[in-house]
Amino acid sequence: MEKWRRSERIPIITKYLLEKPNTLFTMSFFAEFFRAAKSSISEDVSIIKHAFQEFGFGRIETLAGAGGGVIFLPRVGASEKANFLKEIEEKLSDPSRILPGGFLYMTDVIFDTCTAQKVGEIFAEHFVRLAPQYIVTIETKGIPLAFMTAKFLNIPLVIVRDGGRVTEGYSVNFNYVTGSSRNIRTMSLARRSLPQGSKVIIIDDFMKAGGTAKGMIDLLGEFEADVLGIGVLIDTEFPEQKLVSNYYSLLKLSKVDEQKKEVILYPHNI
Amino acid sequence: MEKWRRSERIPIITKYLLEKPNTLFTMSFFAEFFRAAKSSISEDVSIIKHAFQEFGFGRIETLAGAGGGVIFLPRVGASEKANFLKEIEEKLSDPSRILPGGFLYMTDVIFDTCTAQKVGEIFAEHFVRLAPQYIVTIETKGIPLAFMTAKFLNIPLVIVRDGGRVTEGYSVNFNYVTGSSRNIRTMSLARRSLPQGSKVIIIDDFMKAGGTAKGMIDLLGEFEADVLGIGVLIDTEFPEQKLVSNYYSLLKLSKVDEQKKEVILYPHNI
Repeated sequence: MEKWRRSERIPIITKYLLEKPNTLFTMSFFAEFFRAAKSSISEDVSIIKHAFQEFGFGRIETLAGAGGGVIFLPRVGASEKANFLKEIEEKLSDPSRILPGGFLYMTDVIFDTCTAQKVGEIFAEHFVRLAPQYIVTIETKGIPLAFMTAKFLNIPLVIVRDGGRVTEGYSVNFNYVTGSSRNIRTMSLARRSLPQGSKVIIIDDFMKAGGTAKGMIDLLGEFEADVLGIGVLIDTEFPEQKLVSNYYSLLKLSKVDEQKKEVILYPHNI
Repeated sequence: MEKWRRSERIPIITKYLLEKPNTLFTMSFFAEFFRAAKSSISEDVSIIKHAFQEFGFGRIETLAGAGGGVIFLPRVGASEKANFLKEIEEKLSDPSRILPGGFLYMTDVIFDTCTAQKVGEIFAEHFVRLAPQYIVTIETKGIPLAFMTAKFLNIPLVIVRDGGRVTEGYSVNFNYVTGSSRNIRTMSLARRSLPQGSKVIIIDDFMKAGGTAKGMIDLLGEFEADVLGIGVLIDTEFPEQKLVSNYYSLLKLSKVDEQKKEVILYPHNI
């Protein structure tokens, strides 16, 4: 007789899969873990897979054969995604968020762990097929979103430091011009933090003209990195012409009117 | 007949609980969700609870009565914690991590999502009984650890900005002296990011003399915050006398010797 009943194995297998998304677990791993037959484990997995499918909760894939096993991939259903973005739209449209200079206060939203988790899941789902090796962001506000994206892809996070204050040995410093305010800033990345020739995705919270993203791409060029894609939570309607092409954005900020106390933003059709 | 079988409900309930730790779900919520009897849900929950208990995977608590339900609380077993800290010790003891000036390169370790997750789980387990309302950290390197702690406690993260570059409306700026190098720095926190009189826990990656933590406590005083505790991944053996008392640290860094190329650190008895 098997030591653990199916209903006891299932929550444990579920926990393993959810805790390490985008990671292959072999059926033998679970079979040994539970001292159960591989066929029993396979059946457990197919029940979990079916349930997740029915409820639109992530994607569980089973790979047959010698290198086979089971893997959990992030997936946010279309209606869940729409509701989530609608919710962010509503929160951020609050005119009391308008800051002097026409900026929008959004730190509380992007530092909210549930929001960051969902955004990370959406980015991970979008970029997983490109098989990136690293997520790259620049301090500070993009970090929670980038971190959760890295977590759902189960790859490391690399943080570009702003201002050249890096204390991590040899680093590459790069002066860049912010696209919107035309300020000159310095960003830097420690040499040892990213191997040469890595495949990366850039994640950030906000894109106006794209100067920061462009700067990161140039900096990453020094590491011979292959930038597979860029994901931002919000981009702005103006300037229409960004300094980078081809980025994936979840919401478009159309207008922040300090006089009329009006914020207009809306979800992209993604 | 109930629409979903037990073995199908269990992975879904498990996902709900794991995704929102420290959050109460009523039995009615799941009963309505699955169109099942509350007694069936209660039984599902007790199976999950039992399995988690057996494997030492977090703590599932059920609360009886009108306000009752089920809640998942982070818990890292003693041997899992010991193994995990041993692993970090081994990684960080690598002499190739020694940077000029006797610093230790540890960014890759603390930005590793699995490490940050486990550290967050350990901190959350330790501090949950104090019922904090916010996790506070200072940019940049503590963010992943603080973020995961906040996630496991299901409370918001607040990030103190370093250098007074905050663009978030009214902010409180505070000049502080770093305890070890005696530099004067400025930290700032946006007024609207933390309500007056909040109960907070400070999380950071590293403590040498405690000047940064002391600065944060002083800054938080301006918000009339109640600092319930401080958690750091690593503290140093010297200076023995820190500027703050009463903090929870996971590892002690005893020595970084540039000449002998030697790093000595060890886990605290926690």
